Amino acid sequence: MIIVMKVGSPEAEISRLCEECTAKGLTPEKIVGKHKVVIGLVGDTASMDPLQLQEMSPWIEEVVRVEQPFKRASREFRHGEPSEVWVDTPNGAVAFGEHHPVVLVAGPCSVENEEMIVETAKAVKSSGAKFLRGGAYKPRTSPYSFQGHGESALELLAAAREASGLGIITEVMDTADVEKIAEVADVLQVGARNMQNFALLKKVGAQNKPVLLKRGMSATIEEWIMAAEYILAAGNPNVILCERGIRTFDRRYTRNTLDLSVIPVLRTLTHLPIMIDPSHGTGKSEYVPAMAMGAIATGTDSLMIEVHPNPAKAWSDGAQSLTPARFKELVQELGVIAKPLGRWESSPVAVA
Amino acid sequence: MIIVMKVGSPEAEISRLCEECTAKGLTPEKIVGKHKVVIGLVGDTASMDPLQLQEMSPWIEEVVRVEQPFKRASREFRHGEPSEVWVDTPNGAVAFGEHHPVVLVAGPCSVENEEMIVETAKAVKSSGAKFLRGGAYKPRTSPYSFQGHGESALELLAAAREASGLGIITEVMDTADVEKIAEVADVLQVGARNMQNFALLKKVGAQNKPVLLKRGMSATIEEWIMAAEYILAAGNPNVILCERGIRTFDRRYTRNTLDLSVIPVLRTLTHLPIMIDPSHGTGKSEYVPAMAMGAIATGTDSLMIEVHPNPAKAWSDGAQSLTPARFKELVQELGVIAKPLGRWESSPVAVA
Amino acid sequence: MIIVMKVGSPEAEISRLCEECTAKGLTPEKIVGKHKVVIGLVGDTASMDPLQLQEMSPWIEEVVRVEQPFKRASREFRHGEPSEVWVDTPNGAVAFGEHHPVVLVAGPCSVENEEMIVETAKAVKSSGAKFLRGGAYKPRTSPYSFQGHGESALELLAAAREASGLGIITEVMDTADVEKIAEVADVLQVGARNMQNFALLKKVGAQNKPVLLKRGMSATIEEWIMAAEYILAAGNPNVILCERGIRTFDRRYTRNTLDLSVIPVLRTLTHLPIMIDPSHGTGKSEYVPAMAMGAIATGTDSLMIEVHPNPAKAWSDGAQSLTPARFKELVQELGVIAKPLGRWESSPVAVA
Amino acid sequence: MIIVMKVGSPEAEISRLCEECTAKGLTPEKIVGKHKVVIGLVGDTASMDPLQLQEMSPWIEEVVRVEQPFKRASREFRHGEPSEVWVDTPNGAVAFGEHHPVVLVAGPCSVENEEMIVETAKAVKSSGAKFLRGGAYKPRTSPYSFQGHGESALELLAAAREASGLGIITEVMDTADVEKIAEVADVLQVGARNMQNFALLKKVGAQNKPVLLKRGMSATIEEWIMAAEYILAAGNPNVILCERGIRTFDRRYTRNTLDLSVIPVLRTLTHLPIMIDPSHGTGKSEYVPAMAMGAIATGTDSLMIEVHPNPAKAWSDGAQSLTPARFKELVQELGVIAKPLGRWESSPVAVA
Repeated sequence: MIIVMKVGSPEAEISRLCEECTAKGLTPEKIVGKHKVVIGLVGDTASMDPLQLQEMSPWIEEVVRVEQPFKRASREFRHGEPSEVWVDTPNGAVAFGEHHPVVLVAGPCSVENEEMIVETAKAVKSSGAKFLRGGAYKPRTSPYSFQGHGESALELLAAAREASGLGIITEVMDTADVEKIAEVADVLQVGARNMQNFALLKKVGAQNKPVLLKRGMSATIEEWIMAAEYILAAGNPNVILCERGIRTFDRRYTRNTLDLSVIPVLRTLTHLPIMIDPSHGTGKSEYVPAMAMGAIATGTDSLMIEVHPNPAKAWSDGAQSLTPARFKELVQELGVIAKPLGRWESSPVAVA
Repeated sequence: MIIVMKVGSPEAEISRLCEECTAKGLTPEKIVGKHKVVIGLVGDTASMDPLQLQEMSPWIEEVVRVEQPFKRASREFRHGEPSEVWVDTPNGAVAFGEHHPVVLVAGPCSVENEEMIVETAKAVKSSGAKFLRGGAYKPRTSPYSFQGHGESALELLAAAREASGLGIITEVMDTADVEKIAEVADVLQVGARNMQNFALLKKVGAQNKPVLLKRGMSATIEEWIMAAEYILAAGNPNVILCERGIRTFDRRYTRNTLDLSVIPVLRTLTHLPIMIDPSHGTGKSEYVPAMAMGAIATGTDSLMIEVHPNPAKAWSDGAQSLTPARFKELVQELGVIAKPLGRWESSPVAVA
Repeated sequence: MIIVMKVGSPEAEISRLCEECTAKGLTPEKIVGKHKVVIGLVGDTASMDPLQLQEMSPWIEEVVRVEQPFKRASREFRHGEPSEVWVDTPNGAVAFGEHHPVVLVAGPCSVENEEMIVETAKAVKSSGAKFLRGGAYKPRTSPYSFQGHGESALELLAAAREASGLGIITEVMDTADVEKIAEVADVLQVGARNMQNFALLKKVGAQNKPVLLKRGMSATIEEWIMAAEYILAAGNPNVILCERGIRTFDRRYTRNTLDLSVIPVLRTLTHLPIMIDPSHGTGKSEYVPAMAMGAIATGTDSLMIEVHPNPAKAWSDGAQSLTPARFKELVQELGVIAKPLGRWESSPVAVA
Repeated sequence: MIIVMKVGSPEAEISRLCEECTAKGLTPEKIVGKHKVVIGLVGDTASMDPLQLQEMSPWIEEVVRVEQPFKRASREFRHGEPSEVWVDTPNGAVAFGEHHPVVLVAGPCSVENEEMIVETAKAVKSSGAKFLRGGAYKPRTSPYSFQGHGESALELLAAAREASGLGIITEVMDTADVEKIAEVADVLQVGARNMQNFALLKKVGAQNKPVLLKRGMSATIEEWIMAAEYILAAGNPNVILCERGIRTFDRRYTRNTLDLSVIPVLRTLTHLPIMIDPSHGTGKSEYVPAMAMGAIATGTDSLMIEVHPNPAKAWSDGAQSLTPARFKELVQELGVIAKPLGRWESSPVAVA
């Protein structure tokens, strides 16, 4: 249920209403939009009558029930307004959102050693990336495959952060690791395989760092937003949804099927920002540029692209990684369409 | 197997080689590329030795085996060069292909009456479409649903063709109807449900009109190209591949999952031109514009978009149809990215 | 809509009612059940009031609307009673249906030559099969693969029929071939790839031989029954539904995923008999026996199993074919559970 | 790699060989089969030569490389012999395995209160179940749905265990809860959503209780066995694989598609015992009996069936739960086929 306040509603009246809702056993959340203030209400609202609630104050414009199973994540909960997720990085705060330039996230699948991660960070930074991705803890199909360097890789990510000024995005796989990783990461990633690891969702929802929530490989859009709702319900409003390809009947030429149609669909359902990962989405570096272009034209807010200084020798996912040079080129190509669409920074390529 | 001729090979030598190959029981196909001539060979080449074939003439540069199960449709068969499908329309010949502007195909799901089809034809023509789509024979899940006006609708399509100058694309569902439809249509469409109706593929392969081959709803990319190979093998080289969404586990918000990744994948596998149908791909008109944008940025050669003068009253597929006005607007939006990508006609919008 | 008549309704009254319904523009179909007679009504019944119809005669027990999109195929249309499909064979009439023994259909993927098809027919007959399967026209992914011997194979099937006394089931792929094939076949098979070839469905619906309708590889259960409805609506009430495996994300160990859960689901939705094809369903002969066992215990009315005298040398689908010896053994194993379930002929194994 | 010892190999020689392998950096695992002893070797065997290893002792029959990506879980690792998982319960030890009677596991989706869980336990016990299932921690799509009573439910399960003598199977969702749950549960369940929660797999692999590993809803068979390999590699050899339905394109009539073909497939790939869960597999109680029958005939080692004293009032998954009375009836029906197949206890129904 949401309470839409009239334009010019006094701050004191809004506070009073929030208190009254709390007294009724609901959890009010004040959302300040461009023109109006909305009070989102979570709790047992099923039996409440919107018309009766409306009588609480003459400053209330309308009271609307959220019909979706997801409440806080629904577009209605913010009365149609998109949310923005701001992330602090050494180079300044970066915003993910519909009304902001496309944010580029790049880096290797896994952190292999200090040299490679620092080198990659500097390279992708100079091409226009704002964030470095890199796995310290790696979900691998086989217990005998490289599982990531773990804790020591976190230190290397910190070093790369300092050397490049980029924000850090890295994956957390175990509730026991959340705090440790949150000390280094600027954004915590919950991977596709853990999208419905509800214990983990609750844990990342109860800490302060923004969360990147990848879509499970056969998660419906509704299940995906419900997973985000777990994080929001636990108190963390900063969630970015990342599509990374779904599993279909055809896996001969691509590793997954990148579902770009989630972009217009999510826009109508949720206010949360959207990221597309064409690297996992296709599994082959040669298909990444075309799909990155497609993602921007379809309206993504962000791109995550795997970049490795030497893909042929990568410890994991080499086949889907671009070289730093190809990434640089790709950024130029992306600008060709992102600029006329108004989704590009005036000067994406910083002087290194 | 293909024989790549050296630059400047004499015409007579090429003819002689073709004859020699015919004598060996193979079917040679001469393909004139930008720089070189290639002779594609179909037949029982498994036991032949490329090196021995190479000795047939000093003008042969190399003999290469096509490893794909599809031969004529493979990119190698044309030595990497894309094919172009030229279609005659009253307004002149139009080319589908990688090095040509994006071709717009628009129109209603089914032909309902003369007024609506002529009106729609004129409207989409004035917005920049080159072809009118419209079903005379409709594949419907239920035997009790409107099955199309059949033969009489063909006459209405002919009228719309004359009134607008647009080329006509319409579906054929039965081998018994091929000739009748080919009299009116400029391009024969084989629908998703008939992608592996091999009797039909052979029949449309044995006539002269170009064929639009839609991907089956759960056809792998390989099966799809193999279906095209049926048409090519029957003698018709003019095939356009149309992606219209595949069937996945999530059908809550979209009717199908539009798989834009086929664009880069098909580029590496086949020389045939590509069309994307975001209307069937999503099943909802509100998602069509974003996916059309994405398709162009990903690199499609053509778009098929459902347009109906009054979607709410359409006899079929109204939910996924744009109004003529929304289509006009969309064409403007598409131009914003198609122009800088070099895939737009200098003046797409003709004076009505 | 169906009209359920009271027990003991006079024949004349039923006829009168049928005439009255015809006069109202409906198509009545009289279904004689064990205890009651039901009149199924097809046509534009949406606007009719069941209560008003009920007043047509005091012998009417109730008038019920069929809510499913499929009408004639729905279980309600027969007031819950299963239908039986009787097929004449040289050895006598055989019934497919819920209250009959499981019918075994066996034979090779394609008819290769007279000796092999006659030999196979005799072998599977002696093991208990009632029908011989064998393809004259083969749907093949590649235009360069063996496409079946066509018309000449029909003669060989006729020879095998005569030699063994088995009924013949063979596939029809083109509307142009229906009559020719119906002269030889006792049951016409519509294959998975043609399940939504509506022109073909109408054609086989307009002739007299029973039809075996295979489920499309990604057809929903509803679409499948709707395809059967096309045949029923065209006038042919004798349709058997055959599950042959659906397409899913995992195709590493099995060619398709055999969906045995269709058995209880179809039982609640339709009165039509059910067949299971574990050969196509798994694609590997080693998995066929287990799935055939499972199919019987789950409640199938019939099994279709590929048998080839020399699977390793089969022209098509050898990997999924049993030898005649293994088939014989399997039939013994099937009897172990089919007998206590009451779904086995008293003496399935005839003296050879 | 496995070392197959000759029949009659002296114990001392086997020990010596194990030590020698350990010295080479490998982890040997001695497997005592019916006739032979096999030493499974895990570690970096890629560079080792089987023939050279064979020279280590004249008692070695052969040294075979395991080609599958899963090693300990592969059928070859036990030289073709199935493993059995023995579980202690108050009523005695129960074995899961190919050469044992089918084990019945039954109980409610979630533990609601003491009365219902104790009542259900007694009821299913009297019908022949050996284990009680019941969720204390529930994975729910929505954060606002009942999440299970958690720790207090564990006490109720302990009470039901004492009252009925049944073994307890309950789900663990968080690495932090493993120890707590292992104190009460006889078998720890890893649910479908956590099948690739690798942190959790490692944790349950490092404790002593047997593990029930459900297949992820879109996990390939290979990924599933690899998940089991995580548990085996962490030191726990007691893993049971449970199929509970996969996600496909058709979800209209069933919640998932129960894939019974995993039974013959797993038999050829792995030695681990198999369980089938037709309740989650179909999502509807009316389909459960048919699929349970099918599972037994196909060869499952165990069944998990949801039973609730009052399905209509169940806090979760009521639609797929049988009543105790229907369960009792079903067990009788299962016996009809399980007995002739030799997979039934002589007297499954204990005197209550």
